[in-house]
Amino acid sequence: MLVVMKAHATEEQVRDVCQKIEKMGYRAHAMPGAQRTAIGITGNKGEVEAGTLEEMPGVQEVIAVSKPYKLVSREIREDNTVIRFPGTAATLGGPGLAIVAGPCAIESREQAFAVAERVRRAGAQFFRGGAYKPRTSPYSFQGLGEEALRIMAEIREQFGMKIITEAIDHESLDLVERYADVIQIGARNMQNFSLLKRAGRARKPVLLKRGMSATLEEFLMAAEYILSEGNYNVALCERGVRTFADHTRNTLDLSVVPAVQRLSHLPILVDPSHGTGKRNKVTPLSRAAVAVGADGLLVEVHHQPDQALSDGPQSLFPDQFDELMTQVRQIASVVGRGVPEIGMRETLAVSR
Amino acid sequence: MLVVMKAHATEEQVRDVCQKIEKMGYRAHAMPGAQRTAIGITGNKGEVEAGTLEEMPGVQEVIAVSKPYKLVSREIREDNTVIRFPGTAATLGGPGLAIVAGPCAIESREQAFAVAERVRRAGAQFFRGGAYKPRTSPYSFQGLGEEALRIMAEIREQFGMKIITEAIDHESLDLVERYADVIQIGARNMQNFSLLKRAGRARKPVLLKRGMSATLEEFLMAAEYILSEGNYNVALCERGVRTFADHTRNTLDLSVVPAVQRLSHLPILVDPSHGTGKRNKVTPLSRAAVAVGADGLLVEVHHQPDQALSDGPQSLFPDQFDELMTQVRQIASVVGRGVPEIGMRETLAVSR
Amino acid sequence: MLVVMKAHATEEQVRDVCQKIEKMGYRAHAMPGAQRTAIGITGNKGEVEAGTLEEMPGVQEVIAVSKPYKLVSREIREDNTVIRFPGTAATLGGPGLAIVAGPCAIESREQAFAVAERVRRAGAQFFRGGAYKPRTSPYSFQGLGEEALRIMAEIREQFGMKIITEAIDHESLDLVERYADVIQIGARNMQNFSLLKRAGRARKPVLLKRGMSATLEEFLMAAEYILSEGNYNVALCERGVRTFADHTRNTLDLSVVPAVQRLSHLPILVDPSHGTGKRNKVTPLSRAAVAVGADGLLVEVHHQPDQALSDGPQSLFPDQFDELMTQVRQIASVVGRGVPEIGMRETLAVSR
Amino acid sequence: MLVVMKAHATEEQVRDVCQKIEKMGYRAHAMPGAQRTAIGITGNKGEVEAGTLEEMPGVQEVIAVSKPYKLVSREIREDNTVIRFPGTAATLGGPGLAIVAGPCAIESREQAFAVAERVRRAGAQFFRGGAYKPRTSPYSFQGLGEEALRIMAEIREQFGMKIITEAIDHESLDLVERYADVIQIGARNMQNFSLLKRAGRARKPVLLKRGMSATLEEFLMAAEYILSEGNYNVALCERGVRTFADHTRNTLDLSVVPAVQRLSHLPILVDPSHGTGKRNKVTPLSRAAVAVGADGLLVEVHHQPDQALSDGPQSLFPDQFDELMTQVRQIASVVGRGVPEIGMRETLAVSR
Repeated sequence: MLVVMKAHATEEQVRDVCQKIEKMGYRAHAMPGAQRTAIGITGNKGEVEAGTLEEMPGVQEVIAVSKPYKLVSREIREDNTVIRFPGTAATLGGPGLAIVAGPCAIESREQAFAVAERVRRAGAQFFRGGAYKPRTSPYSFQGLGEEALRIMAEIREQFGMKIITEAIDHESLDLVERYADVIQIGARNMQNFSLLKRAGRARKPVLLKRGMSATLEEFLMAAEYILSEGNYNVALCERGVRTFADHTRNTLDLSVVPAVQRLSHLPILVDPSHGTGKRNKVTPLSRAAVAVGADGLLVEVHHQPDQALSDGPQSLFPDQFDELMTQVRQIASVVGRGVPEIGMRETLAVSR
Repeated sequence: MLVVMKAHATEEQVRDVCQKIEKMGYRAHAMPGAQRTAIGITGNKGEVEAGTLEEMPGVQEVIAVSKPYKLVSREIREDNTVIRFPGTAATLGGPGLAIVAGPCAIESREQAFAVAERVRRAGAQFFRGGAYKPRTSPYSFQGLGEEALRIMAEIREQFGMKIITEAIDHESLDLVERYADVIQIGARNMQNFSLLKRAGRARKPVLLKRGMSATLEEFLMAAEYILSEGNYNVALCERGVRTFADHTRNTLDLSVVPAVQRLSHLPILVDPSHGTGKRNKVTPLSRAAVAVGADGLLVEVHHQPDQALSDGPQSLFPDQFDELMTQVRQIASVVGRGVPEIGMRETLAVSR
Repeated sequence: MLVVMKAHATEEQVRDVCQKIEKMGYRAHAMPGAQRTAIGITGNKGEVEAGTLEEMPGVQEVIAVSKPYKLVSREIREDNTVIRFPGTAATLGGPGLAIVAGPCAIESREQAFAVAERVRRAGAQFFRGGAYKPRTSPYSFQGLGEEALRIMAEIREQFGMKIITEAIDHESLDLVERYADVIQIGARNMQNFSLLKRAGRARKPVLLKRGMSATLEEFLMAAEYILSEGNYNVALCERGVRTFADHTRNTLDLSVVPAVQRLSHLPILVDPSHGTGKRNKVTPLSRAAVAVGADGLLVEVHHQPDQALSDGPQSLFPDQFDELMTQVRQIASVVGRGVPEIGMRETLAVSR
Repeated sequence: MLVVMKAHATEEQVRDVCQKIEKMGYRAHAMPGAQRTAIGITGNKGEVEAGTLEEMPGVQEVIAVSKPYKLVSREIREDNTVIRFPGTAATLGGPGLAIVAGPCAIESREQAFAVAERVRRAGAQFFRGGAYKPRTSPYSFQGLGEEALRIMAEIREQFGMKIITEAIDHESLDLVERYADVIQIGARNMQNFSLLKRAGRARKPVLLKRGMSATLEEFLMAAEYILSEGNYNVALCERGVRTFADHTRNTLDLSVVPAVQRLSHLPILVDPSHGTGKRNKVTPLSRAAVAVGADGLLVEVHHQPDQALSDGPQSLFPDQFDELMTQVRQIASVVGRGVPEIGMRETLAVSR
């Protein structure tokens, strides 16, 4: 914390501020300058309440310095967090890219299997599909709930992919924790702190999506909530932020990938489907996400997007996903990454 | 829904789009123009999935027309919703302004009573105070929980003010519903649809705050969630949105007040404390909120802001609140409103 | 400038940074803290280039402290700047509000006079009208140029109002300086530094509008350009900023008014017409602007908005402006302001 | 243009709106729907002024449909614009990527040559350097002006690179047009329409940077200004937009690349240096820009960034640029592009 005094602040005012700081239990470091004096504060454990100081005579402004996150920080842990899944080469945060694909929502067993078969064959190691859908309108399709979770558990058995799906409250989190391999917390719940704490007590990894207007610090602090409850297996996901730009549904902020990697040891994936909201932007932005250094991709794929119950316009056709995977593999090798194969099960081989 | 064709779209392409629309069960209305053809779609009950149409040959873009909200709309109900509280002149949405004041968080019985006494005397009819605090950091003060609710219930008894406090999950909502008069849903939970549905089943009115990056449509749709579950006593609250501007913590969007009033019958209040995050901006923006036509104000007041456990820098001193109320009354009368007195209880008179 | 070291920075790294700072000709002030060390820099005249320091081993980040503006700052001049106009009670920045009204663009002598007569009668002391229009499309009406300036000069003669109109380049500025009383620099040119410097050499006051995504600091720095060339008669104008919100054309940021007044001595007006882009929002936001403490209003008025060549949908009808002025006068008195009368000329009296 | 009527609008109100439209000289197409009637408007050449219609009884809202740009549109010209430079393989918009590199500002002959030698050797075909710098502060270094232009002309002679540099007003544009190969219009001047028109009359290609808060439509309309004056050699450049995110100076919006390519035939480059403002983000975002399909890169390189007179912290070191070029070439080949060699001149060979 730093207190910047006004240019014409008197020596007495500087002294008063220093005394106030000491009275609050901190150390004050006055630095007289050519134009004005600044006063550093040290010895604080958490946030110093700036209010009192800001209102004192002679004070121009108060600037926060220390970062509030701890457990997610590279200062605590230098090596990357790698989330592993027993019995498979797939990871979140390892040298291999994590490819997460599937429909926006699980609509039926047939639909889910049709999509799963295609994305598995193309190289996805994780299957995603919504069981509980946070929809802007109460009149829109809200997901099949536990039935969808059961379908996805079958898909894991059949195709060997790990399952990622969103929980939207304590009740659904209990079920997702039981059926799935990774619990997703969606953008709209990034600051649902009650849900974050519950996820922090879960025994499954968590994929935390960035809120629509979350700063990097808020994003990391949301992850801190989960870690602070004891769950260290957290992966982050950029999915576009809200800006004035109207040519895509959200503005995909790829610069957050190197920014996260500099400050934190947690993996960071990118979701170009929600990040753009337009099918024709998904492939180019997926390439870009791999090129920028992301640890993986979340891509929506639907075998019949025009009949999808939600987010059809942003879902790739399976053939487009095949082509995307070809490009992703090539770019991955440029940045020293690969796409690990998880091995075709016999059932899959037979079904061809 | 409107499909805009490209300038060079062939007649056959136009015909194909029309046929597709009819096949989807809607009516197509082709409108040939000088430069291009547009095709209107009617007969749809909910949203038409634009995906299929957008990808058809010759299509330039697809534009949504119908608004998705229903129950919150003035088209359903022309008269303003007025939320009344038995045994008091205070309302949310009536001709009188609702003045909601109190500390950011309830920290102790002493603090709460000290602030309550002052804001009551100045004219507030509602007392606000956080029992459950959604804090960016897991290491910050999270609220006193049920103890705070009990203190506020005492304040209602003592001072006659109605109590407004935030619920952050199902569990806290159960308690808030029992103790308080109005259940607040905070900005971070505006799209916590599970919580909104629970609030829709509550038997107490709900104050819904606008999310940090919520469009007007999303804001109204969040309210629609509550109404669609049967709770029609909903009031909205603007509390600032997230922009690039850094001279205030959020950018208070006062234009949303007349915008809400044009589209919806629900009351709309303004919270200049969170909307600006700076004490010295609260009074001018409170005046502006009343002048723009808001149905009330939420203002943070603390008798010792520099010792507040949260949001001290944006809390007014009681004397500043007195002065604010004087100005608010004058401006209210210019816009044909007033600040209803709820009557001093004897206990209050005695305590002087 | 403040250099924040990493938590694990070695003493040697701290020493290196201090030596580097001293070598750059500044003074270094190391402040060891519980978690990390921060190093203050003083003695710098302008900006210190943070680049070198940011890349040094052990450095976490570099934070700017000093504000770069000087002449516009209240630290240089405590009293408000008041721009006066000989022979009239109207000011920009005085205790009386400045009311600037007129059509978006001057379209014809008839139109301009019709509007001028009405706004003058309602109490405007300044007449605004576009002669040179910065239009998004090259195919839209671009203004009548010098002919419009001549019409406005006539209006000054006839009605006694001072003339404010926009210059868009050096050439038009030469003419505006000759014909008008105040030179307007529009939002799109707020960082057209070449034009700002030219305005700084003009012998007429300048009204500088805030750019669509200008921070407060950039806004003040743009004004600094004008003052630094010797023209101290500058007034600022908030006209809405660009955000994700789509219920108004721009988001009017009224909090910038008290923020400017705290940092700078320059007057600050508000333009609710461009700030909202919607006729039905202009009156409520005008009231709010006066209530928040603005030094004046810019309002678009057209006697036949549906035939306007530009921005018709945001122009008030003359009767609406009459009503607005009634409300403005009432709210002005609440905040200790008034609307000075500039006296009706005989010609006006005769023309009735 | 589409007029959406209210749900309860009467038949008479619909008829009145249709008659008004016809009276304005257009054709009205009423489309009665289940909930409400929408009325299409055709026959309009440019924009219909929505004002009148929006205010008529029974009207809910008016929605714009036609896109206002023409010459920049793919509807006018299906094939990509390729800007060629006689005597070299370098293009803007051809199958080969355009690599534009150099210091933010030309500071001296020595500095410019030192950087030029390195970027030329690494593979840049274009040299960039500021002669006229638009700086936020009037007290910052503003560029060497014509002297810088002369230095860059020498660099062209010596190294065979084409020169790109920014013009900030009519005067500097005259000089830039004379000395340089491509005239750059910066972000702050994207809507300086007077300058755009002047650029439209220049006989050199123009590189137009996106404004900090420009929508795609405004960006294309700014280019339309240049084309409408007869200069069809225009290339666009994304350089980051302004958002709430604070981990980079701007938020680089890579999705605008495929969006431009869908709507327009003009080349689109990306500037990751200004787009991020941080050296450690430039390389990853450059890779991403090539992967997303951009037609080229603008990268700031300085041999001594810590002594740069402007934007040092975002300039790459020459060794970093070498490495970047290696990665760019690899990713370019994945997306079917290459980096054309322009051939080493003898002088260069000798200087090794």
